[in-house]
Amino acid sequence: MGLIAIGAGLAIGLAAIGPGIGQGLAAAKALEGMARQPEAAGMLRTNMILSFAFMESLSIYGLLVAFLLFAQM
Amino acid sequence: MGLIAIGAGLAIGLAAIGPGIGQGLAAAKALEGMARQPEAAGMLRTNMILSFAFMESLSIYGLLVAFLLFAQM
Amino acid sequence: MGLIAIGAGLAIGLAAIGPGIGQGLAAAKALEGMARQPEAAGMLRTNMILSFAFMESLSIYGLLVAFLLFAQM
Amino acid sequence: MGLIAIGAGLAIGLAAIGPGIGQGLAAAKALEGMARQPEAAGMLRTNMILSFAFMESLSIYGLLVAFLLFAQM
Amino acid sequence: MGLIAIGAGLAIGLAAIGPGIGQGLAAAKALEGMARQPEAAGMLRTNMILSFAFMESLSIYGLLVAFLLFAQM
Amino acid sequence: MGLIAIGAGLAIGLAAIGPGIGQGLAAAKALEGMARQPEAAGMLRTNMILSFAFMESLSIYGLLVAFLLFAQM
Amino acid sequence: MGLIAIGAGLAIGLAAIGPGIGQGLAAAKALEGMARQPEAAGMLRTNMILSFAFMESLSIYGLLVAFLLFAQM
Amino acid sequence: MGLIAIGAGLAIGLAAIGPGIGQGLAAAKALEGMARQPEAAGMLRTNMILSFAFMESLSIYGLLVAFLLFAQM
Amino acid sequence: MGLIAIGAGLAIGLAAIGPGIGQGLAAAKALEGMARQPEAAGMLRTNMILSFAFMESLSIYGLLVAFLLFAQM
Amino acid sequence: MGLIAIGAGLAIGLAAIGPGIGQGLAAAKALEGMARQPEAAGMLRTNMILSFAFMESLSIYGLLVAFLLFAQM
Amino acid sequence: MGLIAIGAGLAIGLAAIGPGIGQGLAAAKALEGMARQPEAAGMLRTNMILSFAFMESLSIYGLLVAFLLFAQM
Amino acid sequence: MGLIAIGAGLAIGLAAIGPGIGQGLAAAKALEGMARQPEAAGMLRTNMILSFAFMESLSIYGLLVAFLLFAQM
Amino acid sequence: MGLIAIGAGLAIGLAAIGPGIGQGLAAAKALEGMARQPEAAGMLRTNMILSFAFMESLSIYGLLVAFLLFAQM
Amino acid sequence: MGLIAIGAGLAIGLAAIGPGIGQGLAAAKALEGMARQPEAAGMLRTNMILSFAFMESLSIYGLLVAFLLFAQM
Repeated sequence: MGLIAIGAGLAIGLAAIGPGIGQGLAAAKALEGMARQPEAAGMLRTNMILSFAFMESLSIYGLLVAFLLFAQM
Repeated sequence: MGLIAIGAGLAIGLAAIGPGIGQGLAAAKALEGMARQPEAAGMLRTNMILSFAFMESLSIYGLLVAFLLFAQM
Repeated sequence: MGLIAIGAGLAIGLAAIGPGIGQGLAAAKALEGMARQPEAAGMLRTNMILSFAFMESLSIYGLLVAFLLFAQM
Repeated sequence: MGLIAIGAGLAIGLAAIGPGIGQGLAAAKALEGMARQPEAAGMLRTNMILSFAFMESLSIYGLLVAFLLFAQM
Repeated sequence: MGLIAIGAGLAIGLAAIGPGIGQGLAAAKALEGMARQPEAAGMLRTNMILSFAFMESLSIYGLLVAFLLFAQM
Repeated sequence: MGLIAIGAGLAIGLAAIGPGIGQGLAAAKALEGMARQPEAAGMLRTNMILSFAFMESLSIYGLLVAFLLFAQM
Repeated sequence: MGLIAIGAGLAIGLAAIGPGIGQGLAAAKALEGMARQPEAAGMLRTNMILSFAFMESLSIYGLLVAFLLFAQM
Repeated sequence: MGLIAIGAGLAIGLAAIGPGIGQGLAAAKALEGMARQPEAAGMLRTNMILSFAFMESLSIYGLLVAFLLFAQM
Repeated sequence: MGLIAIGAGLAIGLAAIGPGIGQGLAAAKALEGMARQPEAAGMLRTNMILSFAFMESLSIYGLLVAFLLFAQM
Repeated sequence: MGLIAIGAGLAIGLAAIGPGIGQGLAAAKALEGMARQPEAAGMLRTNMILSFAFMESLSIYGLLVAFLLFAQM
Repeated sequence: MGLIAIGAGLAIGLAAIGPGIGQGLAAAKALEGMARQPEAAGMLRTNMILSFAFMESLSIYGLLVAFLLFAQM
Repeated sequence: MGLIAIGAGLAIGLAAIGPGIGQGLAAAKALEGMARQPEAAGMLRTNMILSFAFMESLSIYGLLVAFLLFAQM
Repeated sequence: MGLIAIGAGLAIGLAAIGPGIGQGLAAAKALEGMARQPEAAGMLRTNMILSFAFMESLSIYGLLVAFLLFAQM
Repeated sequence: MGLIAIGAGLAIGLAAIGPGIGQGLAAAKALEGMARQPEAAGMLRTNMILSFAFMESLSIYGLLVAFLLFAQM
């Protein structure tokens, strides 16, 4: 049971590293673009959130696995 | 059974690091391009999502392996 | 029970590394943009906080898993 | 049996890190090129997907090994 | 009980790495902007502290988990 | 038998990290070159695939070792 | 008891890595700005110390956890 | 026997990381050069393959050791 | 008792990595600024030492924990 | 005997990482130079192979140690 | 007693990594500045040694802990 | 005896990473210089080999230790 | 006794990584400066050796600890 | 006795990583300088070898510790 907990911790912990850095890279460029073309801010925000959704889903997979592991505990 | 849980955690956890960073790199350049050529935003978004699909599939493989491991638990 | 504690520690610990660096990258570019276009500061702040919300959620998932692990202890 | 699960997790987990970052690098440059030469977007997309196929195959190998390991479980 | 202590140490220790680097990146750009536009220093400081609050919260989550682990010791 | 599985997982998993990043670097430069000289796209694609073949072979070696390990299981 | 000591060591040790690098990044930019605009040195120093306080607090959390762990020894 | 399998996996797995990245660096520069001087493409391809042969040999050594380890199993 | 020694070693050892790199970054920029504006050297040195004090304190925390661990040995 | 196999795997595996990356760096610059001065290609190739020989020898040492370890098995 | 030795080794070993890199960064910039403004060499050397003293002290702390660990052996 | 083999593997394996990367860095710059000043190629080759000799010696030390470890087996 | 040997190996091994890279950074900049201002070579060499002495001392500390560990063996 | 061998392997193995990279950095800049100012090649070579001697000594310390460990075996 303790090992399942470590598995769940690794699943969500590791699965948040990549998307976290990735969302940061995307947000950095989007905010830079908004500062340069304020008139494109709405379009950029829409697309930034769209790209966030894909990265967020990677962490959601990790969360899903962690929840399934709880169901086994 | 605990070791299977750790295996599942590693499968989805590690498999989210690379695609997460990769999607971030791709989204960053796409958002930069959208800010520069707002008229190309639609085309860029289509291609960005296309490239996301490939990277997303890498994590889906990890999720698939994790699910198969649950079936063995 | 000790292993569950290590699992909880890994869950929240690892899940704070990526978002922490990611929020830093986003904030750095937003603050750079604010310094260049002070008149866009309000719009940039709104979008920065919006992007923070997504990254914050990654850590919240880790926190959620850690709380669920406490419920099992 | 638990060790086989860890082996399967490592196989697909590690095998998704490199291709994930690699596809991100390729997609970033392709999207940058599309933003600069929108008229070359079709040709770039074709070649980007071609290069993705090679990188995707690296992860497929990992998935293949993981499946073979399930057959042994 | 010793393993709980290691879990608490990992929780707060790892959870301070990412926000620490992230706050440094944000502070570096904010201070650079202040040196260039001293008249925007007040606005930049306000936004820098705002972004710090989000990153600080990531470590607070780690601290929270560590405290909860003490309650179990 | 479990250790053999871990060996197979490490063989294909690690052997996909380097080629994955390497193919990404090569594809990025090839796609950048295609965007700049669309008339050289055919020649670049031929050479890109040629270089991919060498990198792909590195992962094939890992796959080969993993298959041989299955034969021993 | 020995494991509690390792937990305390990890708590303060890891919690000093991120803020240490972060403070260095912030100080580097602040000192660069002071060398360029000596007349803004006072304002920059004030803000640098302000940002240091936030990063210092991350290590203080680690120190706090280490102290609490001593209380349990 | 399981440890021999891990040894074989490490031998080919680690021995593919360096050459994989190295071949990627070499291919990237060769493809960049081909895009700039299409008339030198033949000469560059010859030399690229020549340099690949040396890097490929590093992985072949790893494969050789893995095969010898099978002979001992 | 041996584990306490390892805990003390990790506390001071890890706690010197971040501040060491951070002080190096700060000193590098301060020395660069002094070489460019020798007349600002005194002001820069004062501020450099001020920033060093904050980073030094991070290691002092690690030293403090190590000393407290000796008191428990 | 299994530990000797792991030793052999580490010897050749680790000894291929550095030279692999190093040869890639050298080949990248040589190929870049060849693209710029095609008339110097012969001289550059000679020197590139000369430098490869030195790096190759580092891996040969690892291979030599691995062979000696087989003799002990 | 052996574990105390490992603790001492980690204390001085890890505590020399950060300051070593940091002193290198500081010395690099100081020597660059001396080459550009030879007339400021004396002032730069004084400040470089001053900054070295702070970084040196971080390693001294590690040495101090290692010595205290010897006293316990 | 197995642990001695691991020691020998680590000695030559780790001792080839640094010199491998270092020789690559040196060769890259030497080849770049040769491409720019073909008339200095002979002098550069002589000095490159001279610098290689020093780096090669670092790996030779590792090889020497590995051989001495064989003598103890 | 074996653990003391590992402690000694870690002490000198880790303590040579940081100073090694640091001395390389310092020497690189000093040699670059000498190539640009040959008339400042003497002054630069003096200061380079001065900075080397500080970094060398970090490794000497590690050597000192390793020797003290021998005295305990 | 096996642990002493691992200690010796770590001592020389780790102690060759830093100096290897450092010598590479120094040699790279020295060879770059020689290509630009061939008339300064003799002076640069003298100083490069001088700086190599310091870095070489770091590895010699590791070799020395490894030899002393043999004397204990």
